[in-house]
Amino acid sequence: MRLLHEAPLDPRSRFVRMILAEKKLTFDLREERAWERDPEFLTLNPAGETPVLREAGVMAIPGATVIAEYLEETVPEPNLLGSDVTGRVEVRRLLGWFLDKFSREVTEALREEQFLKRVIHNKPPESRILRAAKANLSYHLDYVGWLAEHRKWLGGDVISLADLAAAAQISVLDYLGVVEWQNAGEAKEWYAKMKSRPCMQGLLAERITRLSPPAHYANPDF
Amino acid sequence: MRLLHEAPLDPRSRFVRMILAEKKLTFDLREERAWERDPEFLTLNPAGETPVLREAGVMAIPGATVIAEYLEETVPEPNLLGSDVTGRVEVRRLLGWFLDKFSREVTEALREEQFLKRVIHNKPPESRILRAAKANLSYHLDYVGWLAEHRKWLGGDVISLADLAAAAQISVLDYLGVVEWQNAGEAKEWYAKMKSRPCMQGLLAERITRLSPPAHYANPDF
Repeated sequence: MRLLHEAPLDPRSRFVRMILAEKKLTFDLREERAWERDPEFLTLNPAGETPVLREAGVMAIPGATVIAEYLEETVPEPNLLGSDVTGRVEVRRLLGWFLDKFSREVTEALREEQFLKRVIHNKPPESRILRAAKANLSYHLDYVGWLAEHRKWLGGDVISLADLAAAAQISVLDYLGVVEWQNAGEAKEWYAKMKSRPCMQGLLAERITRLSPPAHYANPDF
Repeated sequence: MRLLHEAPLDPRSRFVRMILAEKKLTFDLREERAWERDPEFLTLNPAGETPVLREAGVMAIPGATVIAEYLEETVPEPNLLGSDVTGRVEVRRLLGWFLDKFSREVTEALREEQFLKRVIHNKPPESRILRAAKANLSYHLDYVGWLAEHRKWLGGDVISLADLAAAAQISVLDYLGVVEWQNAGEAKEWYAKMKSRPCMQGLLAERITRLSPPAHYANPDF
């Protein structure tokens, strides 16, 4: 059986859960509290970060991008990386965009302030950081909207890891109630389509203790 | 002909140059000053970051990891990613470690303070940032040393993208004169071996205007 070490509201863990679900692979979940720096978890991933995937007889597979490439190699159907070289270049570019750039400029800061600080450590969030991250979110949503307007899916004609990575980020932000959907146009339509997919149902049904999402969070029609 | 858009003392550009050289692919270089946000360059890579590789008849390939995966797919010999699934997991894990974590915790800060601020913009570096990045460097060099002690190359039995990514980071830091080699043990031996490889000769011969490296920089015997 597969075991995924994940963390609550961690966009990269959500991304891997969505890949596993798209590929119809079953898995168990184990929650890691990365901020506790558990020595046993550090042996699985010296970087101390979720997600880490474990499969019987295979070494631990640490990190969202590494897991995504591993699953594409070992379970090639459905193909989520692209069927030709130029398609894969674009999907991998967007993977870096959403898992690294978007995450660093938006999601990590908002998750830190609104969830880890406020809910886990009972500290007030810092309004300067919240403002900056929300401004970045508006710019990133515009880019998602631009992609959704010019293509059927974010990476091209078919759904790909790019859509999963973007939806993973946005689902965390939407849980935190910080997405201004009234201005989101094409990005909103694309995300509604993502919310209807089976790969998101498990995530959208989950609730965190002491933190409720807005009413529209799991509703595919907003 | 291939054209690589790169930036001076950019570790990710250096990493791609080393891959191209290991695969015996010829290329021209174009220097981008990413801080000027040239609109034409932004159409090649919306993230505005070097490196970007262009090949006749192929779309622009932006980002070090995307380029590395692209070159492994299109020019598979010599194989730098690993010959089996578990080998590729480990090389990709280390790629993330060196290109993202090491770069973010060490190289970006030192390049910003000691090169971009001091040499390009004529501003004083910030000593608090320098101290933190140098402390991180010491911890990262220990990890390189640990890998070099337990394996023939950093990613396993053969040279891989992991060695190239690590050497690219370290070559930038060594140019800046911030590596304390007297404490570096196994990491120093491994880097001496890297400095002897043909793929590093072009880089080690290059000099930046108004900034000289230490005397040992290009010497494979230190």
